[in-house]
Amino acid sequence: MKVPLLVNDFLRRAAGTYPGKLAVVDGPLRLTYADLEQRVAKLANALRSMGVAKGDRVCILSPNSHYFLESFYATSAIGAILVPLNYRLVASDHEYILNHAGVKVVLVDWEYTAIVDGIRPSLRTVEHWIAAGGDGPVPSGWRDWDELTAAAPLDAPPDPGMDEDDVVSINYTSGTTARPKGVMLTHRNCYLNAYNMIAHLGIRHDDVELWTLPMFHCNGWGGVYALTGMGGTHVVLRSIDGRKIFDLIERERVTFACMAPAVLRTILDYPDKQQHRIETRPRFVVAGAPPPAAFVERLERELGWQFIEIYGLTETSPLLTVNHPDHNVAADDWGQRARAGAPAIGVAIEVRDEHDRPVAKDGTAVGEVCTRSNVVFRGYWEQPAETDKAIRDGWFHTGDLAVWDANGTIHIVDRKKDVIISGGENISSAEIEDAIYQHPGVLECAVIGIPNEQWGETPLALVVPRRPGELSGDDIIAFCRERLAHFKCPSEAQIVAELPRTATGKLQKFKLREQFWSNRDRKVN
Amino acid sequence: MKVPLLVNDFLRRAAGTYPGKLAVVDGPLRLTYADLEQRVAKLANALRSMGVAKGDRVCILSPNSHYFLESFYATSAIGAILVPLNYRLVASDHEYILNHAGVKVVLVDWEYTAIVDGIRPSLRTVEHWIAAGGDGPVPSGWRDWDELTAAAPLDAPPDPGMDEDDVVSINYTSGTTARPKGVMLTHRNCYLNAYNMIAHLGIRHDDVELWTLPMFHCNGWGGVYALTGMGGTHVVLRSIDGRKIFDLIERERVTFACMAPAVLRTILDYPDKQQHRIETRPRFVVAGAPPPAAFVERLERELGWQFIEIYGLTETSPLLTVNHPDHNVAADDWGQRARAGAPAIGVAIEVRDEHDRPVAKDGTAVGEVCTRSNVVFRGYWEQPAETDKAIRDGWFHTGDLAVWDANGTIHIVDRKKDVIISGGENISSAEIEDAIYQHPGVLECAVIGIPNEQWGETPLALVVPRRPGELSGDDIIAFCRERLAHFKCPSEAQIVAELPRTATGKLQKFKLREQFWSNRDRKVN
Repeated sequence: MKVPLLVNDFLRRAAGTYPGKLAVVDGPLRLTYADLEQRVAKLANALRSMGVAKGDRVCILSPNSHYFLESFYATSAIGAILVPLNYRLVASDHEYILNHAGVKVVLVDWEYTAIVDGIRPSLRTVEHWIAAGGDGPVPSGWRDWDELTAAAPLDAPPDPGMDEDDVVSINYTSGTTARPKGVMLTHRNCYLNAYNMIAHLGIRHDDVELWTLPMFHCNGWGGVYALTGMGGTHVVLRSIDGRKIFDLIERERVTFACMAPAVLRTILDYPDKQQHRIETRPRFVVAGAPPPAAFVERLERELGWQFIEIYGLTETSPLLTVNHPDHNVAADDWGQRARAGAPAIGVAIEVRDEHDRPVAKDGTAVGEVCTRSNVVFRGYWEQPAETDKAIRDGWFHTGDLAVWDANGTIHIVDRKKDVIISGGENISSAEIEDAIYQHPGVLECAVIGIPNEQWGETPLALVVPRRPGELSGDDIIAFCRERLAHFKCPSEAQIVAELPRTATGKLQKFKLREQFWSNRDRKVN
Repeated sequence: MKVPLLVNDFLRRAAGTYPGKLAVVDGPLRLTYADLEQRVAKLANALRSMGVAKGDRVCILSPNSHYFLESFYATSAIGAILVPLNYRLVASDHEYILNHAGVKVVLVDWEYTAIVDGIRPSLRTVEHWIAAGGDGPVPSGWRDWDELTAAAPLDAPPDPGMDEDDVVSINYTSGTTARPKGVMLTHRNCYLNAYNMIAHLGIRHDDVELWTLPMFHCNGWGGVYALTGMGGTHVVLRSIDGRKIFDLIERERVTFACMAPAVLRTILDYPDKQQHRIETRPRFVVAGAPPPAAFVERLERELGWQFIEIYGLTETSPLLTVNHPDHNVAADDWGQRARAGAPAIGVAIEVRDEHDRPVAKDGTAVGEVCTRSNVVFRGYWEQPAETDKAIRDGWFHTGDLAVWDANGTIHIVDRKKDVIISGGENISSAEIEDAIYQHPGVLECAVIGIPNEQWGETPLALVVPRRPGELSGDDIIAFCRERLAHFKCPSEAQIVAELPRTATGKLQKFKLREQFWSNRDRKVN
């Protein structure tokens, strides 16, 4: 018998098996799985009554919240596609994405309604505006989420007749191009990624996850599905704050959290750790970039907690490899523990040279990480040429450069794609360069990622002025801050006389990067 | 990207990630995952060189052994279908199955070659005879497994181009009909069942499984795939023996085992438990029938080990429900712990009345367990009418009667199908009745399952003689022993004057069973 693999199976199981169990803690609000299922059904019915049909796009712009969690299951229940926005982007980014995805309904956290109102006139497809949370009345032009859903019927919405290859979400990610691309993840992608999260991160019915990871990040890396399917408890965290994190871990008996290395750093640097009595020995899963070995050691030695590094991309749902102490990796080899690890079930990985041939498995030869798996996305939304560039001959080319060893364990050493990863966020250097080129005093420029202790990497701009002496680094940074999300702005801008180019005029970024990355064993952070 | 879900992914991952890790312990033999992969490749190539092609059937008749484990992956690697035989059957059963499945190659443990030789003239499709194990030379007419594979090439066989809906094994099971039916399990069935085993039984890379379960039982309930995929270690057990079990648990640091209740009993009754120093706190997973609550208590209290009850059928790959202490079930509610439990991920279950409507979720109303899931088999091999009887309107009707509660937790109370489960084996009462009817002194008969402390249930024959006084119970048992596998023979035969029938002449077996099952909360064991 063949039944489509649809992500709503996860909530259905939790609500059926654990109706009275705590599903969500969000500030003072505590929802059981029966509550969550009801809220999801009501939202789904409310969206249907607005005319949202199978395949329609619904976006959410929100920090982590129970509303965000509900939006995943309510949209997929009626066959709609969720577009989770990165709330750190600026209005012009949101405008581009909402128009590009042709979004019909926007679900927006109360703190973000103003930014959406600012671009309202240029949003070509949005028909409905729904505001979530906040204490006072919703702003004019918005409908209140809770009022809307309170009035909606409680019955499960009719089966939209989905196929497992239908798209469940479009997750916009910055990469090599100036504009973000919409990664289409299917039900099957997300379903099998959730099984791999459960298998390789050992997610159990008694896990309590603290949401140190933004839910918009690849659907909370799939935790939205994996933890729910097992009947675990979601503890929502709206923003990263050391005291709040330790308070919640202690009070809610948290056992599990996912994060970027920058969040791990915040946790390790929190000064009042000893004031908390934490007995749950939580598992901290880190991805985005390999953290310093010292972070792993501090987490395991000082706090006695458990560290697990994973590797993946939004395009891979994301879990590709996992690394925790086992037959191949000694528990106290902190450097090895911080590496990407070995493939998950059903994930074929090859590290390949420029002719698409595997490089030697000797821990030295560098090649591009390529993968063939059911967790690889369906394609970029309305960008078939970009899709064909990324998926060739049935293999997705990640753009990450790595070495691998005889056990197939990979270690990311550099990035082929011109992308900077800062605090877990992808930043396109092309996008920053585009902004800088708008400055009339700029002749040419290049943006590269440089190592940064806090964020892993930050962008550095190298700028050649039209007329020497008429431009400063601060001018460039200020100019960028008016045009780009703050996290994308260069932390430093240097005025230089020229940029290194090949004979044919091609910019040699690797030469620019060399001086900042020398004496390091890898060129990503 | 869509890649077919094929079970060889599990071995590929283990051999790639854990090449030097211990994969199999079989007596003095210890194989790493690299060894296992090589042995599998050689067997696959040997089978190919004999002309075994995609879709061809290969059977294995063997107690648990590393050969058995290898046969699963070698057949599926080349797209062949494995037919694992129950070694407890008699020659005429094997003859029926081998001819019915149209088996091309038989793989037979050295202790079982004689039984196959006895039926050789009537096997219509078998072309190749391969014997495994043993010390001396193989009998005449057989080729030696090790010699054959030693000469075979080591390269991975060419990709047979499989679809995930292709059949991976045909598992013959006794049910309501006198002849066993061939349950076709697909790659997708087995793959998703393996994920559910991993998720709900918490299978990890450092698990060591003792094979207290015959590998022929629904492909070792999927453990053949699940444990391998996670890179755990298989400790082979050829036959059930208390001392051997305790020795292996201690020596190999076993953490996990699956079994029927009768095996659990053997383990609990082993007298010299205290002579063993066991620190691994193994998880014992029991299925087949709910064991007595006292078994659960003894395992957890006396031994300090962990008990998990699951429920399923060969037709469901098999995992349908799982029960371990959690939000709904108190750890020391031994009776509740022995029940079937709640659905696994992606398993829809309904307890339905005779009109296919769900009965009340009140723990009292009895209905038939029906399920809709990707773990439900593709159909019975060459028995489309039987398939259509079992799968109706997209739901598989298990024939098991249960109550369910508000959490969807089910408790099996009776069996709709006329099948007896004894020591974990399905026995068709129709098959026993057929045998008894061959006795010239029998007028009519009925076989029912009655409670038995050792085996859960055993068959009881009620026989009406043609002429009073000319037939004894012992005659009937002796007659059966000449015709049926011993485990199927009635443990008792009673001579009666008449059998209760309805007005229309239909036999009322439930009336016969009542007297034996009164004062029990359920009518299965």
